[in-house]
Amino acid sequence: MAVYTEVPDDALEDFVAEYDIGLILSCKGIAEGVENSNFLLTTTQGRFILTLYEKRVDPSDLPYFLNLMEYLEAKNIPCPTVLHGRDGVGLREVCGKPAAIISFLDGMSPRKIDTDHCKMVGEALAKMHLASLNFPLTRKNSLALMAWRPLLNSCGHSINQVQPGLKNLLEIEIDYLHDHWPACLPVGTCHADLFPDNVFFLQKKLSGLIDFYFACNDFLAYDLAICFNAWCFDKKGSIDRSRAYSLLTGYCSVRQLTVTELKAFPTLARGGAVRFLLTRLFDWINNPTDALVRPKNPSEYFHILSFHQNISEITEYGLE
Amino acid sequence: MAVYTEVPDDALEDFVAEYDIGLILSCKGIAEGVENSNFLLTTTQGRFILTLYEKRVDPSDLPYFLNLMEYLEAKNIPCPTVLHGRDGVGLREVCGKPAAIISFLDGMSPRKIDTDHCKMVGEALAKMHLASLNFPLTRKNSLALMAWRPLLNSCGHSINQVQPGLKNLLEIEIDYLHDHWPACLPVGTCHADLFPDNVFFLQKKLSGLIDFYFACNDFLAYDLAICFNAWCFDKKGSIDRSRAYSLLTGYCSVRQLTVTELKAFPTLARGGAVRFLLTRLFDWINNPTDALVRPKNPSEYFHILSFHQNISEITEYGLE
Repeated sequence: MAVYTEVPDDALEDFVAEYDIGLILSCKGIAEGVENSNFLLTTTQGRFILTLYEKRVDPSDLPYFLNLMEYLEAKNIPCPTVLHGRDGVGLREVCGKPAAIISFLDGMSPRKIDTDHCKMVGEALAKMHLASLNFPLTRKNSLALMAWRPLLNSCGHSINQVQPGLKNLLEIEIDYLHDHWPACLPVGTCHADLFPDNVFFLQKKLSGLIDFYFACNDFLAYDLAICFNAWCFDKKGSIDRSRAYSLLTGYCSVRQLTVTELKAFPTLARGGAVRFLLTRLFDWINNPTDALVRPKNPSEYFHILSFHQNISEITEYGLE
Repeated sequence: MAVYTEVPDDALEDFVAEYDIGLILSCKGIAEGVENSNFLLTTTQGRFILTLYEKRVDPSDLPYFLNLMEYLEAKNIPCPTVLHGRDGVGLREVCGKPAAIISFLDGMSPRKIDTDHCKMVGEALAKMHLASLNFPLTRKNSLALMAWRPLLNSCGHSINQVQPGLKNLLEIEIDYLHDHWPACLPVGTCHADLFPDNVFFLQKKLSGLIDFYFACNDFLAYDLAICFNAWCFDKKGSIDRSRAYSLLTGYCSVRQLTVTELKAFPTLARGGAVRFLLTRLFDWINNPTDALVRPKNPSEYFHILSFHQNISEITEYGLE
């Protein structure tokens, strides 16, 4: 949940006046998106999302994210798109922060995940991967393999207070991943954060993918591995094999994984678990007491990592 | 900002199915209301607020609050009202908590308060006081004079860390208020929390009063004093005399204050300052590190109290 910046009414009125969207009826800060301040803006012409990009987002990356959403939406991937003002501009400033009005998507994130959700998410991720094959912009994954050792070091020894021996265990794991990370797999545009919070469903159909603010170029199967970790384990980090089967077969029904992708999957899934374990540890340790956001418990991802470390056969994921 | 309880999609669907309000399109936790969990619920028939009443609200008080809002709305005071389901029931349970669907009011709380706002708020409070004169239900003010000493004691000596000598200063002030509190003033239904957060404006007109969850029977002029403290001082606790004049004359243009009310006003304003200083101190001291709500700074109310302590003439408030 997040509203880091309060927007004064006069600043809001001036901002909305740049668009052809009518008069403001209400504007409420919403508990959605950990990285930015989001407001549900209702005008006489409809509902919109006003997003203020906070310090975690590099402003120079914003054109990439916003262009990607427009590109995908044009290819029938249901995702929010930036509104352009009368002057054609989409990205402006409010209260000294980059800000944009984004289209509103109906639907809700599922709280109780079932196999139907997983199948539809697998399909949607594969469709997104295919739809963005010719997307002309690129962005490096700033949270890829090379970033993990520095991230671990920046957490310091206090992570051993979260769990004894965790620092050493992660050092060994990162060494392993450096040694075993695949060199050459199909690369493309990844969402890189396709958690249940970022997928909407409406009347049992997938209605939207949101929050593309980690999107980047990386191995497509790594994106699937992140998504797999996010959807196919319970809150304690135990795998749900029916969900796993549904997500993976849903994905493969749209984009078949290659033999090398299948073989690399356990390593990619370990990497995906390490990436989220590290950022959660970082947030857990560096959580200021006045934070508006409750950091997510890192231990879930420790269990997910342990699971993948014990995988020897790809079939154990439900893949054939 | 507040979302303390997450509502699973199936629980939400079952809940909404009790009402004639169409199908759910979206439901977003909103950063509004410190005491409860609030969601902006959009259905095929419109926008609503779903409120889950959290532990700070005594469930046995809810019928009073909800009936009051209905009563006031029927008397043309713009405030939210509870929706009744097909079975006629307004107050139900979701996730083990009392919950209700409330009508959505357009408008926004002002961030930058001007004299027009103050005039309209003064008028609206007086209208609310007159409209509720025959409201048949009553509720004791649980945060009245008698509650302040126990509240101060429950804060303990740690409030001196907020400001040296504060505990002693407040003990003396509470003694003073016990000695000088008026015995007999016009009593009625008070909002008791009419801060800018709880008043909406739309196109420069007051469009709604919300959050009646502190409403109670008390001196009407005490309600005005709380409102005065909330609207007529800047964030540092310095008075804005133009706003003070506008709020008080706005109120008096609808309901004239009696001579005894005018005379008691400085004492009531001191009491109002003590009441909010104490609850802010309590929240400041007892703020858990994982809280989703950033407690409000108590020092603002210390300055407001100091201001009132130095008032000798009623005219200093802008009253005649």
